[in-house]
Amino acid sequence: MNATSATISFEDFQDAHPADIAAALAELSPQAALTLLSGFPVNDQAEVFGYVEEERQAELLGLMTRTQISKLVSAMNADERADLYNHLPEEMQEIILPGLAHVEREDMRALAAHEEGTAGAIMTSDYAVLAPDLTAREAIDKLRREAPEKETIYRTYVVDGERRLIGSVRLQELILADPRKKVANLMEEDPLFARVDEDQEEVARKIARYDVIAIPVVDSEHRLVGIVTHDDAIDALEEEATEDFHKLGGAVSLDESVRTAGLVTLYRARIVWLVVLVFGNLLSGLGIAYYEDTIAAHLALVFFLPLLIASGGNAGAQAATLMVRALATGDVRPKDWGLMLGREFLVAAALGLTMAAAVSGIGFFRGGPDIAGVVAASMIIIVIIGSIIGMSLPFILSRLRLDPATASAPLVTSIADATGVVIYFAIATFWFMRNGAAAGLG
Amino acid sequence: MNATSATISFEDFQDAHPADIAAALAELSPQAALTLLSGFPVNDQAEVFGYVEEERQAELLGLMTRTQISKLVSAMNADERADLYNHLPEEMQEIILPGLAHVEREDMRALAAHEEGTAGAIMTSDYAVLAPDLTAREAIDKLRREAPEKETIYRTYVVDGERRLIGSVRLQELILADPRKKVANLMEEDPLFARVDEDQEEVARKIARYDVIAIPVVDSEHRLVGIVTHDDAIDALEEEATEDFHKLGGAVSLDESVRTAGLVTLYRARIVWLVVLVFGNLLSGLGIAYYEDTIAAHLALVFFLPLLIASGGNAGAQAATLMVRALATGDVRPKDWGLMLGREFLVAAALGLTMAAAVSGIGFFRGGPDIAGVVAASMIIIVIIGSIIGMSLPFILSRLRLDPATASAPLVTSIADATGVVIYFAIATFWFMRNGAAAGLG
Repeated sequence: MNATSATISFEDFQDAHPADIAAALAELSPQAALTLLSGFPVNDQAEVFGYVEEERQAELLGLMTRTQISKLVSAMNADERADLYNHLPEEMQEIILPGLAHVEREDMRALAAHEEGTAGAIMTSDYAVLAPDLTAREAIDKLRREAPEKETIYRTYVVDGERRLIGSVRLQELILADPRKKVANLMEEDPLFARVDEDQEEVARKIARYDVIAIPVVDSEHRLVGIVTHDDAIDALEEEATEDFHKLGGAVSLDESVRTAGLVTLYRARIVWLVVLVFGNLLSGLGIAYYEDTIAAHLALVFFLPLLIASGGNAGAQAATLMVRALATGDVRPKDWGLMLGREFLVAAALGLTMAAAVSGIGFFRGGPDIAGVVAASMIIIVIIGSIIGMSLPFILSRLRLDPATASAPLVTSIADATGVVIYFAIATFWFMRNGAAAGLG
Repeated sequence: MNATSATISFEDFQDAHPADIAAALAELSPQAALTLLSGFPVNDQAEVFGYVEEERQAELLGLMTRTQISKLVSAMNADERADLYNHLPEEMQEIILPGLAHVEREDMRALAAHEEGTAGAIMTSDYAVLAPDLTAREAIDKLRREAPEKETIYRTYVVDGERRLIGSVRLQELILADPRKKVANLMEEDPLFARVDEDQEEVARKIARYDVIAIPVVDSEHRLVGIVTHDDAIDALEEEATEDFHKLGGAVSLDESVRTAGLVTLYRARIVWLVVLVFGNLLSGLGIAYYEDTIAAHLALVFFLPLLIASGGNAGAQAATLMVRALATGDVRPKDWGLMLGREFLVAAALGLTMAAAVSGIGFFRGGPDIAGVVAASMIIIVIIGSIIGMSLPFILSRLRLDPATASAPLVTSIADATGVVIYFAIATFWFMRNGAAAGLG
């Protein structure tokens, strides 16, 4: 390590926020990033390192000596350390473990053991607790001693002898109170909490809904095992929103940066659905093959094919997107299906009528009154059915305990396409059979 | 108002969180909700009312007397009051204003004057400030007096004689410090801040990025004019994510609940894009009309039409979704277009090759070697072009200072569809002209 060059480049960053330094590290080569990072005292290094992206963290550790690694990792926050540990390849995990003190090691193993996506996985063990029989003065003294290491002391949790969560008290209240008053008399009972296996998105929404800075996490015996802070909650919500976005676009969720992810990773995230949809779209082809006589007799029908099937797909994609988001934010619950179905039917009928009006003129102009009638009737039915498919799919997926966001725009579009082909040509075949009319492209 | 029945139903809610009471109000009829709400002391009413949805707020106010309204509104938080005011119809705004004290009225007008979507619109004026020449003891006394009314006192902002933001100090530090030490010597200088006209999403991301509970907001003279708290930041991020979701699904952004929004509102949010896309999809029809001779001669081509155009649309929708989200979270910046274009080309080429391999067998089986060749070549080119359109559109929109999320899946699909039709039939025409081969559906 060249200490001189590190000191020089690092002076520009002395007043910078750790998050900004981490962002700067991302722009440098791994070796240059390590040199810059090493210029800081180890506690600052650890804080900066907590803001560094996962892939970059692994790269940097790969360049460090074992001593450097264990110093850095020991200085990190408990939850960030557990996060880091979770994302490292196994051989690196084995390098980290021996360098930690026994308590830290156990703590990290406990935090790392929770399933991804649960409260347990995003909680931290850096928090202070109080006993109910402390006085306000004793409580403040305890917080003074422990506070600098704890993530938040603005609200402290009160636990009984078995570490069961029995209340919470605000720092403000401890300060304002008579110093001899007991914590038991100052605390709010039955505080808000999250279960350790609760979905991280639900926990984050609790924090947002109840406007709190942190939420205590308890195990099945109601023992306090950690806290989730508001910043980790924002991260969790952002992560889940990104995941839903990617799914909705028909990609497997990507937990890396789109800018830096490997091309093979991007390929893999996208190919699965694309190939599945190829076979889905072949159904549309089968529909066409089935009605080939109608098509051969009335070639003008082909002119409207892309428009009609796309309209059903578009209306369906809209309906699916609105429902996926509404289910994700809790605006709509799975039991609301019946209500939403009725509403969707009415809205879709109005949409279909408007769109039929918009195209029937063109249908008349290009193919005469028969084509105009077939196109208008098909448009109304295709838009209604496409919308109902799009709106229902997220509910069905949610009942099957799958993620509603799997009802991606491409998936809904493909299903609506195949349905649209059949509806369109079935109506046309029926219409022309009944009327014995003839219409051709020429 | 029937006080007895109100007291009865309200007892179940005495220990409930205001957010839960607000949720319960949403399930009741407006009149029953008002009866329940009126059972609480006015300060609790105001707190609950802040959690009630906008439409419901207006309904409830419509049922109250002027005296009830002014009592309730006076007791609300400054930012929630300004929010409420902003969303009310004009005649209700005029009912509210006279009931407020002069200071509150000016304060609300100032807060309400900021443009929707900016820091100014989501900030609150409920915060404490300190002068730099106070001692730690004096500062704590001031906070003790003012704190109960303020949204957050964990970090207090320090302003000079002209109210310019010069620093910030944590409550923790004031408590731990020598009581005679000056705030000027305890504060951190140059604190993080947001400008009053800054985009709310950017402000929320600053709060998330720097893991702070609140961020001070300054005007063009660097005077402190408000603070944005973490809970309002989460709400802002959620709101923007929902907006992006709706846009991506091809709906005009809906700022109401999908469950309770009027059917006309839902219709309006969806019809605009659907009709625009109808005319977009007619372009596909024109492409088909242009190549009608090729189609008439080789009807087997129609079998693959939905598949090929859908594949281009699906790949494009994926690429657009990934980019819209990456641009929204700041993962990718507008200047990264060149880099992303190169990466997209490589990924799309690999996707196209895989999909061509998947369908060429079916092409051979249904239409012979010529159809197989045309379908495979078309698939590769359509997927590459669809992906590049999908990936570029968000960048183009962002350069035109439009929202990248306008590059919705339906829009990208429609553009890719029309492009796909032309590519497919152009390749087919060229192929059959060159080879003089003949293939038909029968």
